[in-house]
Amino acid sequence: MSVALVGAGPGDPGLITVRGLDCVRTCDVLVYDRLVAAELVGEAPPGALRIERDPLTQDEVNEALVEHGRRSRVVRLKGGDPFLFGRGGEEALALAAAGIPFEVVPGVSSLASVPGSAGIPVTHRGVSSAVTAFAAHDVEALDAAVLARLPGTLVAFMGGAHARRLAERLIEHGKPASTPTALVSRGTTDEEEVVVTRLGALEDAAATPALVVIGEVVAVRSALAVQRSAA
Amino acid sequence: MSVALVGAGPGDPGLITVRGLDCVRTCDVLVYDRLVAAELVGEAPPGALRIERDPLTQDEVNEALVEHGRRSRVVRLKGGDPFLFGRGGEEALALAAAGIPFEVVPGVSSLASVPGSAGIPVTHRGVSSAVTAFAAHDVEALDAAVLARLPGTLVAFMGGAHARRLAERLIEHGKPASTPTALVSRGTTDEEEVVVTRLGALEDAAATPALVVIGEVVAVRSALAVQRSAA
Repeated sequence: MSVALVGAGPGDPGLITVRGLDCVRTCDVLVYDRLVAAELVGEAPPGALRIERDPLTQDEVNEALVEHGRRSRVVRLKGGDPFLFGRGGEEALALAAAGIPFEVVPGVSSLASVPGSAGIPVTHRGVSSAVTAFAAHDVEALDAAVLARLPGTLVAFMGGAHARRLAERLIEHGKPASTPTALVSRGTTDEEEVVVTRLGALEDAAATPALVVIGEVVAVRSALAVQRSAA
Repeated sequence: MSVALVGAGPGDPGLITVRGLDCVRTCDVLVYDRLVAAELVGEAPPGALRIERDPLTQDEVNEALVEHGRRSRVVRLKGGDPFLFGRGGEEALALAAAGIPFEVVPGVSSLASVPGSAGIPVTHRGVSSAVTAFAAHDVEALDAAVLARLPGTLVAFMGGAHARRLAERLIEHGKPASTPTALVSRGTTDEEEVVVTRLGALEDAAATPALVVIGEVVAVRSALAVQRSAA
């Protein structure tokens, strides 16, 4: 049959795409990330096989997609977008190698939606016309010298637990400690928490998932009173 | 009443969010970008006032949102995501200043979805763990020295018409002319066109909108046979 790699969006279940929801509602097998909203897992047909991804290794996930994909309609439901820190490329390569037909249904990434939910536009005319998203689970491996020199907004994924060290490294390489910075945990959900601070005062996130947003756009927030989109 | 700034997604009408489509279906006034799919404009109620954005200046758009927003349910339907090169921040500020309640409903940005539709994951394990999106309508104003040094994927928005000059500037600043590069026009739609080349051989786009993707992830495409998601 086939596999659809579907982006579930940033947390709010109303932010899945129409096409993505159609795929979930007609699947035989649903392989889903722990962080995907329970409401979306509940949209799969009652008889669908549900497989939680998190206890599995990536190789085991790839194998499950290939094996079930041979005879069933499989949906691989992933947080955010499959191709933006979603490891969708690895799963797509495994499916392509096995000759299993697949499609990719993009999703709303946390990149702009999570800052946006906190009232922060990642680009804003006259303030920032570029944004760099990077994986920050290994802060020491980052090229902090280049990141510190970038003129646009920085958005660190998977950096909440090391936010303070990330800030230290950027400041060491010349990023001003006064740079407006926000830490947004569980963005777009009812449990969203926003900390607005300066780079030099950034602390590690207490909750996950968390996104770190660094740049002058964070200061735009004070002029906005954005209401969160309801599910 | 209120205004919803809604991201319509990258082109394929099936890629609007469930929440965004709900907003469109219940609006009194729809202010929409020319590039938004006609199918989505058609989802507004038959009696809704439809206003095309493109003949208006940004100030006129802001005024229209404020004036209609005082007494009607207004949807401002924008290509991609409102806060990622969508000028949503400017509209949100105008609404906040006028005291009009508003919400932001994020959309699927072209950033990952358009390369993804062409079979290119903007991040991929072992290849790229960062992506920089930038506005390239004014190539000469770009900090090409910094962009050329970035280790991750580059995605140029609004750079299709100046793609060749963009490539020249990056190469002048040391980006290898051999860097895999793709030009994706009208991504995710039935009219999608993909040109895969090297940075040194990049030509301007014939069609708009077009996205330029620069980096080793472009080479992952050859191993994939991604099927486009249907609307």
